Amino acid sequence: MKRRVFLKSALALGGTAAIAAPAIAQSAPQIRWRMTSSFPKSVDITFGAGEYFAKLVSDLTDGKFVIQQFAAGEIVPGLQALDAVQSGTVEAAYTGLLFYVGKDPTYSLTSSAPFMMNPRAQNAWYYHGGGMTMTHEFLRKQKVVAYPCGNTGMQWGGWFKKEIKTVDDLRGLKMRIAGLAGNIASRLGVVPQQIAPGDIYPALERGAIDAVEYIGPYDDEKLGFHKVVQRYYSPGWQEGGTIFHGVFNLEKFNELPPLYKKAIEIASQATTLDMLAHYDAKNPEALQRLISQGVQVSLFPNEVLMKIFEETEGFYKGLVGSNPEFATMFNHQREFMKKSNMYQQVADFQYDLMMFRTKRIVSQ
Amino acid sequence: MKRRVFLKSALALGGTAAIAAPAIAQSAPQIRWRMTSSFPKSVDITFGAGEYFAKLVSDLTDGKFVIQQFAAGEIVPGLQALDAVQSGTVEAAYTGLLFYVGKDPTYSLTSSAPFMMNPRAQNAWYYHGGGMTMTHEFLRKQKVVAYPCGNTGMQWGGWFKKEIKTVDDLRGLKMRIAGLAGNIASRLGVVPQQIAPGDIYPALERGAIDAVEYIGPYDDEKLGFHKVVQRYYSPGWQEGGTIFHGVFNLEKFNELPPLYKKAIEIASQATTLDMLAHYDAKNPEALQRLISQGVQVSLFPNEVLMKIFEETEGFYKGLVGSNPEFATMFNHQREFMKKSNMYQQVADFQYDLMMFRTKRIVSQ
Repeated sequence: MKRRVFLKSALALGGTAAIAAPAIAQSAPQIRWRMTSSFPKSVDITFGAGEYFAKLVSDLTDGKFVIQQFAAGEIVPGLQALDAVQSGTVEAAYTGLLFYVGKDPTYSLTSSAPFMMNPRAQNAWYYHGGGMTMTHEFLRKQKVVAYPCGNTGMQWGGWFKKEIKTVDDLRGLKMRIAGLAGNIASRLGVVPQQIAPGDIYPALERGAIDAVEYIGPYDDEKLGFHKVVQRYYSPGWQEGGTIFHGVFNLEKFNELPPLYKKAIEIASQATTLDMLAHYDAKNPEALQRLISQGVQVSLFPNEVLMKIFEETEGFYKGLVGSNPEFATMFNHQREFMKKSNMYQQVADFQYDLMMFRTKRIVSQ
Repeated sequence: MKRRVFLKSALALGGTAAIAAPAIAQSAPQIRWRMTSSFPKSVDITFGAGEYFAKLVSDLTDGKFVIQQFAAGEIVPGLQALDAVQSGTVEAAYTGLLFYVGKDPTYSLTSSAPFMMNPRAQNAWYYHGGGMTMTHEFLRKQKVVAYPCGNTGMQWGGWFKKEIKTVDDLRGLKMRIAGLAGNIASRLGVVPQQIAPGDIYPALERGAIDAVEYIGPYDDEKLGFHKVVQRYYSPGWQEGGTIFHGVFNLEKFNELPPLYKKAIEIASQATTLDMLAHYDAKNPEALQRLISQGVQVSLFPNEVLMKIFEETEGFYKGLVGSNPEFATMFNHQREFMKKSNMYQQVADFQYDLMMFRTKRIVSQ
């Protein structure tokens, strides 16, 4: 604000000041952008991450660069956020790139794909494993630039009316399941349904669907699935950690002053940390509440998971054979994961395992 | 830079411009700070995180706020970094607050303490569990403000000459082991040694010590321990995730314009993500190299870990009884961890476990 006052008074002087003014205007112009979110306000940690990101950008530019977020449907429907940025209807979107697997399954790899990376590996791949460059190259052809701007952590495997003992128990289930996971589930006899968040509960209640995967305890609780179904399954083989992105129209982004580009990049990075921390703080409390209301946490039997994995491998093999861009990114991630998993299973995973074992002693 | 040019030309006009000038100077003054690191340049990811942080602050302030980092020993020795900030010798330090447990064991809880949180829980606690406020309150009395500004991930349990089969195998070992872990190890008969990084290898080679814990594969490899000792133990019960901080003189920090404070806060947050991602990308490769040179990765037997844990609980009980500030933060973290561990063991941990099980299939 102070700079604006100065600019005005300087301009009032005319002459010399008028020559200097464009320099200021160029390095710190007042800019307003619209950012369409793929999420309703009710998914408050995720929608809130978009708000947090926009606030940081404003704070880091002394209020000069203002990005206003709109909820899904206010400008365009949630799943048209990417299109709206590409066409220039809005300058920015807050969205999950995995929503656009219909355009190209490669989008899934930039965000979350079945049996792929967890959040720590995703960060390592993006920031120090070549992933950022690879993603930017892919997205440049789509006329957008994007930065990871939030992570939900593992999403849950879903709510099921009946117990899943073998992979055959999945056959014939009408399940709300999104993205590539839907394709994979259908290979196992599941009948995947695409249902908007607000319509899931009624569908479940009237028996139109038998199962649903949405996000995790904190968000699922609000949609009320536990009032109809009590079996809550983990792990969510379909999403080990889901990255949401700030997506920007490439041309508009390139016109920004360097400082504003940096503010977007760093605010996104800080938001990635903040949103996962937020879910990690809130999910445990939500799960406790759900359990106290009769929800039964269940783990998929290992054989079921390995059957789904085999089916997933077959599915990926087809994509690798038919889509060179998918193949390049997939193979790069798999190579990275191989090293990362080898390491983590003897390192940080062992620390966590040790801590779970101390529990009995602590609670004595 | 452009703003400076403008400021000069505006000042040259005198009169009206001179009234406006302080507003600009106040909101974006040129400031140079010195930041003393506790680390030598050879610990390049950690030292590099300090460089990365300083670069972000400069980028986010258009080069106006310059923080220059100095390696341990260039201004003050590594372990006097906090004192140098408190006395005002330097404005900032990049350090591990756990190094100052001699002043107060509470420092350990802000950074890393035996059998406490992993990096995800640490972030959840700091950013959405009340930890930032609690830490700031503790540090205000020490005349500093600090933000988490990096995380190493789990540090390894150490290099041992002989196999550790029972807790009795620890008795009599001369071990380089730092901080509270040294106190705990001594309760188990270990003779803890404080040795500066550069002196560890010679001490190990000439048999002055039998064991050493330092950081993890990437850093340990450079110090060459594997040339003398082949047994490398996990998990590092002493540090489940070590946070380093940017520490700032409270008075100097309070004098900063709001934009610069925000730049410090957000650059720190982005660095926390970046440094862990860096270690997570580099540690797996380093461990592979070590294994190819004959290093044997060993896991501490569960009974050994549980004995160390019992001893740790006894040690903590003493601190809780004698140090009210430690007690408050410790109980707060333990309450948080209880919920977090309950959740993670049925959630993201199960995802990781599933992925490790797919390994056989993937590598076929």
